[in-house]
Amino acid sequence: MKSLTKELWMEIPTRRAIVSIHREVERLVVESGVQEGLCLVSPMHITASVFVNDNESGLHHDYELLLEKLAPFNASSEVYHHNRTGEDNADAHLKRQLMGREVTLAITAGKLHLGPWEHLFYYEFDGRRRKRILVKIIGE
Amino acid sequence: MKSLTKELWMEIPTRRAIVSIHREVERLVVESGVQEGLCLVSPMHITASVFVNDNESGLHHDYELLLEKLAPFNASSEVYHHNRTGEDNADAHLKRQLMGREVTLAITAGKLHLGPWEHLFYYEFDGRRRKRILVKIIGE
Amino acid sequence: MKSLTKELWMEIPTRRAIVSIHREVERLVVESGVQEGLCLVSPMHITASVFVNDNESGLHHDYELLLEKLAPFNASSEVYHHNRTGEDNADAHLKRQLMGREVTLAITAGKLHLGPWEHLFYYEFDGRRRKRILVKIIGE
Repeated sequence: MKSLTKELWMEIPTRRAIVSIHREVERLVVESGVQEGLCLVSPMHITASVFVNDNESGLHHDYELLLEKLAPFNASSEVYHHNRTGEDNADAHLKRQLMGREVTLAITAGKLHLGPWEHLFYYEFDGRRRKRILVKIIGE
Repeated sequence: MKSLTKELWMEIPTRRAIVSIHREVERLVVESGVQEGLCLVSPMHITASVFVNDNESGLHHDYELLLEKLAPFNASSEVYHHNRTGEDNADAHLKRQLMGREVTLAITAGKLHLGPWEHLFYYEFDGRRRKRILVKIIGE
Repeated sequence: MKSLTKELWMEIPTRRAIVSIHREVERLVVESGVQEGLCLVSPMHITASVFVNDNESGLHHDYELLLEKLAPFNASSEVYHHNRTGEDNADAHLKRQLMGREVTLAITAGKLHLGPWEHLFYYEFDGRRRKRILVKIIGE
């Protein structure tokens, strides 16, 4: 069995953003030498998501509106008890759960096995600091 | 290490539907010969989900209502910017994220290792065309 | 390839609760002897979630409120068709989908490879009976 482990560092200058990590993960799959296997891509933080969807800015705007509607930002510690810790990012923990934590991708014949429109993104819900994404590849 | 890779073709005649893929994936696990391993089942499209829940039509109706409440269909490109691309399926991309993308299942002693009510489904949010589901099995 | 398979039994005395399973899964990773691999943690029931987020009680309160807002409890079989089966737990099936089913974790150098705040939980949405969680570890 072969494996590759890599932590990707991100520093998003805004509170929220959607950033492609597609090419970097494709490159790591090649570097791993794995022909048949699985590739786990997961944020190492609890206010961020890794997801697969369309590389289309209008849709990313629509995700922003959806998540703000379902789990709106509110710094109040009355609205969100998590903010009693002194933080104001309770909404970021909620949004990340609705969007999902990690994705597991297949590797076939040495490449990510994806449909034509599947594109891999990091979704930051509480940025302006250095955070990591974990890529773990196993197979042979 | 053994592996099996299979693309299942679907063509759902309606816009939305929930379809069991349980027996087919069970069959592929046997075909793989894997005794201990993992089975990833994932749509290859970004307006569909694979999920595990109850094989009960009332519940499937309830999922429809929930997702339509949280992320309603609307063809307008004012409501959903994704529809400025000329498509009308922004809601399908949103519903799929809320429902989840893929599932990873355990294989133990040559079979899917599931609880008594766990049943595997494909959820189509924008059908009426041919689409694929990827099954990737690794183990030994 | 090495593997470890373990079913953890839970019996939550209340309808809903969030319970840490972090230490137990860490212990199983050591017991498996796997140095590089993947660890799938998944409920074997369809009214429960396994998730990773903050070990902070205020946030857990906020998840309760969020899920009750999006998919409220209602025993009526008019509101939820699933309840026509004689059950009253349709909301539990909906909440579990929004929160997610399973998590896949990386194992590196013989340990769970997690960020500093990542903590593993079981979320029960319909307790007061014995239920199981599956831990499946593969690697070498």
